[in-house]
Amino acid sequence: MSIEVIGIEDLPIIQPGDDLAGLITGKITFIDGDILCVASSVYSKSVGNIRHIAEISPTQEAERIASLTHEDPRFVQAVLDSSIEIILDCPFILSRLPFGHIGVRAGVDHSNVEDGIVILLPSDPMAAAEQIRSAIKEKTGANIRVILTDTCGRAFRRGQTGHAIGWSGMTGIRDFRGDHDLFGHELLITEEAVVDEIAGFANFVMGESNRGVPAVVFRNMDLWNGHDIMYFNESEDIIKESLKKR
Amino acid sequence: MSIEVIGIEDLPIIQPGDDLAGLITGKITFIDGDILCVASSVYSKSVGNIRHIAEISPTQEAERIASLTHEDPRFVQAVLDSSIEIILDCPFILSRLPFGHIGVRAGVDHSNVEDGIVILLPSDPMAAAEQIRSAIKEKTGANIRVILTDTCGRAFRRGQTGHAIGWSGMTGIRDFRGDHDLFGHELLITEEAVVDEIAGFANFVMGESNRGVPAVVFRNMDLWNGHDIMYFNESEDIIKESLKKR
Repeated sequence: MSIEVIGIEDLPIIQPGDDLAGLITGKITFIDGDILCVASSVYSKSVGNIRHIAEISPTQEAERIASLTHEDPRFVQAVLDSSIEIILDCPFILSRLPFGHIGVRAGVDHSNVEDGIVILLPSDPMAAAEQIRSAIKEKTGANIRVILTDTCGRAFRRGQTGHAIGWSGMTGIRDFRGDHDLFGHELLITEEAVVDEIAGFANFVMGESNRGVPAVVFRNMDLWNGHDIMYFNESEDIIKESLKKR
Repeated sequence: MSIEVIGIEDLPIIQPGDDLAGLITGKITFIDGDILCVASSVYSKSVGNIRHIAEISPTQEAERIASLTHEDPRFVQAVLDSSIEIILDCPFILSRLPFGHIGVRAGVDHSNVEDGIVILLPSDPMAAAEQIRSAIKEKTGANIRVILTDTCGRAFRRGQTGHAIGWSGMTGIRDFRGDHDLFGHELLITEEAVVDEIAGFANFVMGESNRGVPAVVFRNMDLWNGHDIMYFNESEDIIKESLKKR
């Protein structure tokens, strides 16, 4: 059993309006079942999901938080505009996005972009993954699977890792409910967040720096069953509740 | 750029006293630079790092927590004995281990083991990874790298993913400090927890179920620079502090 993981190199720097799926299919010949991971920042830039800092007028609330976090109030305003719930405002903004994801600075990114521009997370990353998948099917006939990745911090551990924020052609969670272990016991751990495990390794291959590898293909990957309920509901999220009381 | 990820199949069910490195080297020919991921539960079982439930006498504190979590008080005692700090006792035990890791039930595992036995996390997983690495060097001459994995929950997201609890031959964190992005900006995200990204994908290949793939090899992997400071110190860990005040 061997899986091949291929970093897609030598893509140009993506600009708004670029045909991202077309640029990717120019670099690799897909086969059915491949999983393509794409950095969400690159997807967002290709569809123009960016903001010009100079065009943002910060509110009083953005000014207040910016004075705590020592950031540009216009950048903070972009974070607030992307968020539906602020969980922490200091030492960094931690907030929830409309699609359920909780992340630092709402995933608003000002690395690897030209001066004065920030990149937002896709507002509907599941639809975005489906859109890439359809475009590749249309261009090549290949029936692939797609994950959009973002780089996030974690609880209790230093450093950032890649996470899946949208996916298409597979479920986010592999569900082992009803399975039994090697000794016939029913499994206690029943939910594995496989899209995050794949997105994390894709992020390793992409690198965070100036390598310019915004897409990674996984070949010879299993199929699995499961579901897409990735985010806790209000009563389940003990950590969010504790942080809001802080 | 292509990485090969190989699941090591058809290993026997590991028993205390088994030569784990020898069993693995019987299934694959290593080459220098390979990264071998091993499930920590399998390593622990091979070195006899297990407890027999029938031999554990629960304290009053274990009885109290067991009544909250609806678990066997002797199992709870094994969790308490593995922990140096209890962060939550309900709805599940979340605790810190001596080597710094914070996890649910202190990583004490009663899946894939014979009835009446629990498997503990290695008490010094960095030394354990180094021990596997040395044993493989001695047996084969190959200079590989090793990660010990465990399956853990995460904040804000459902489902479990693989994490690295020990590693040898590489740093846990890849440090981009001083690097610049494609536009010449200094990078804001400077620390990537690469061993967790690799461990997560290894966990995907292992599966959580009855596949019997306790070891995964990554071939053609980069080298990187960084450090091993994986865990927050007391004043940095906002989430731990908030949970303890709960």
